[in-house]
Amino acid sequence: MSEATRTTDILVSEVGPRDGLQSVASIMPLDAKKAWIAAEAAAGVTEIEVGSFVPARVLPQLADTAEVVAFARTIPGLTVAVLVPNLKGAQAAIAAGAHKITLPLSVSETHSLANLRRTHAQVLEEAAQIAAAIAALPVADRPHFEGSLSTVFGCTLEGAIPDAQVARLAEGLMAAGCDEIGLSDTTGYADPRAVRHIIRLVRGVVGAGAVTGIHLHNTRGLGLANVLAGLEEGLTTFDASLGGLGGCPFAPGASGNIVTEDLVFMLEAMGLSTGIDLDRLNAVRDIVMAAIPDEDMYGFVPAAGLPLGFIPATRKDRTV
Amino acid sequence: MSEATRTTDILVSEVGPRDGLQSVASIMPLDAKKAWIAAEAAAGVTEIEVGSFVPARVLPQLADTAEVVAFARTIPGLTVAVLVPNLKGAQAAIAAGAHKITLPLSVSETHSLANLRRTHAQVLEEAAQIAAAIAALPVADRPHFEGSLSTVFGCTLEGAIPDAQVARLAEGLMAAGCDEIGLSDTTGYADPRAVRHIIRLVRGVVGAGAVTGIHLHNTRGLGLANVLAGLEEGLTTFDASLGGLGGCPFAPGASGNIVTEDLVFMLEAMGLSTGIDLDRLNAVRDIVMAAIPDEDMYGFVPAAGLPLGFIPATRKDRTV
Repeated sequence: MSEATRTTDILVSEVGPRDGLQSVASIMPLDAKKAWIAAEAAAGVTEIEVGSFVPARVLPQLADTAEVVAFARTIPGLTVAVLVPNLKGAQAAIAAGAHKITLPLSVSETHSLANLRRTHAQVLEEAAQIAAAIAALPVADRPHFEGSLSTVFGCTLEGAIPDAQVARLAEGLMAAGCDEIGLSDTTGYADPRAVRHIIRLVRGVVGAGAVTGIHLHNTRGLGLANVLAGLEEGLTTFDASLGGLGGCPFAPGASGNIVTEDLVFMLEAMGLSTGIDLDRLNAVRDIVMAAIPDEDMYGFVPAAGLPLGFIPATRKDRTV
Repeated sequence: MSEATRTTDILVSEVGPRDGLQSVASIMPLDAKKAWIAAEAAAGVTEIEVGSFVPARVLPQLADTAEVVAFARTIPGLTVAVLVPNLKGAQAAIAAGAHKITLPLSVSETHSLANLRRTHAQVLEEAAQIAAAIAALPVADRPHFEGSLSTVFGCTLEGAIPDAQVARLAEGLMAAGCDEIGLSDTTGYADPRAVRHIIRLVRGVVGAGAVTGIHLHNTRGLGLANVLAGLEEGLTTFDASLGGLGGCPFAPGASGNIVTEDLVFMLEAMGLSTGIDLDRLNAVRDIVMAAIPDEDMYGFVPAAGLPLGFIPATRKDRTV
């Protein structure tokens, strides 16, 4: 099958090079990041969050994000995503040529102040400035701009966040000029009922077309059950981290990312094609483990193997 | 709330004392088994599979099952379940006074021959003899008799099992006199789509009322997602093992039981009451770990803790 005719049902967005690496003590060398990203793209992953434009003193693990973006842009068909905390980060992302920019807005203002030292109003103002900077670019150069509601399933400082506050902030991000609203279970508090509720709540305010993806954690073991709830609500993009990098799922307070390998297995087993070759994806683990040998990598499917006679939904005859 | 007015939405059936202990090398002393079962019942668990009537030379870990049943029967409100491989085991279970007897029938005949050294026809004949033995009892003394379709989501020796074979065996068990058909993902091959398919397939043959529960594993990390699919199909009973005892989820070939603590958390978070107090359930881990200190216990929720402000569906004012 040619590149042009390949279709997938679900977009699995790899966030390991950003969310994973920012959470571990080891600093991965630039060449290893390039090898990781290239190998995962070759396995069929079409969107990778490759870094974050934050000050190097805050996250030295991601200090080379501009170079990573420059490399990742050379991979045909890959959407190169980055996280930015503010306008300055967005300007750097634009200069580097990122295809997608995500600005997190913590729906818990306590968390927003603690994490970004900004009120909701200040973050919304940053969003408007970023949208203006993007609008000033030639149409072909404009990155996709996502405003992501973090701690949307509850905050370790505030607990549950009122629906009205979530709705107001989603509306505020769209009014500021975001193209899309992301949902992020920063704290691993989500459950399938809450996933359905938040999706319907936010879509009710901004429209279904502006809510297509979700960033779930596996902190309490419910990650894939929450994905299933999201699938049933019609979401089509799910974040995950290779080897669950970025949080030991058994450690208190860990971020506990969903394991990309397990997520892809579930989707493919359910008949939903991801375009990703599971054997090639599993092989990418070796690159990561060799580069940061002090970090643990997780995953049930890599440990247990595939079922006898397993046929993934993604056709094996595709070209890469 | 009094015992009489307590209601629950979902029955979480603890299988650790049978499925967990049969899979680990350590032999738990009888007193520890009693303490475990008593503490879990006190936490609100109303059904426990306490052992298996198999020859002691095969499973020395479960050689004291008759004594465990005798003790468990003294706990008010507890349904005492056991597994039996054949008529002889069922006769021992009846003599001991078990409330529920489960006979596994592997839908993979290769597996049935390897595991029980019996053909499908021979197991169905055992089922008929067990049903006859039960029917000969006074009505008040008759245990509930479940025929459980094991490897129903696929077999490590045969791979996928044809639908027609599954349907024929479900029908055969009911014809033999079973009260109910159980579904067991012995190999950890299930995914949410397959869960829905198998439930509908078997119910189509034996009726919805005869399929109410499922025994799922977490071998490939999909255990709770599969539970969600089962919930959506209307199942009301789910098996799980405290601490996931009975299989390291990261080891190839492990049984990888669903962790009771994580399952109860998911259900309670979704607003489905289990009648189980999570704090008291977590405390039971100490009993098990003290008795078999060489074994690993798992669980995301025990490691991460409950979300801030978490309110379980089960009321806290119930009496136990």
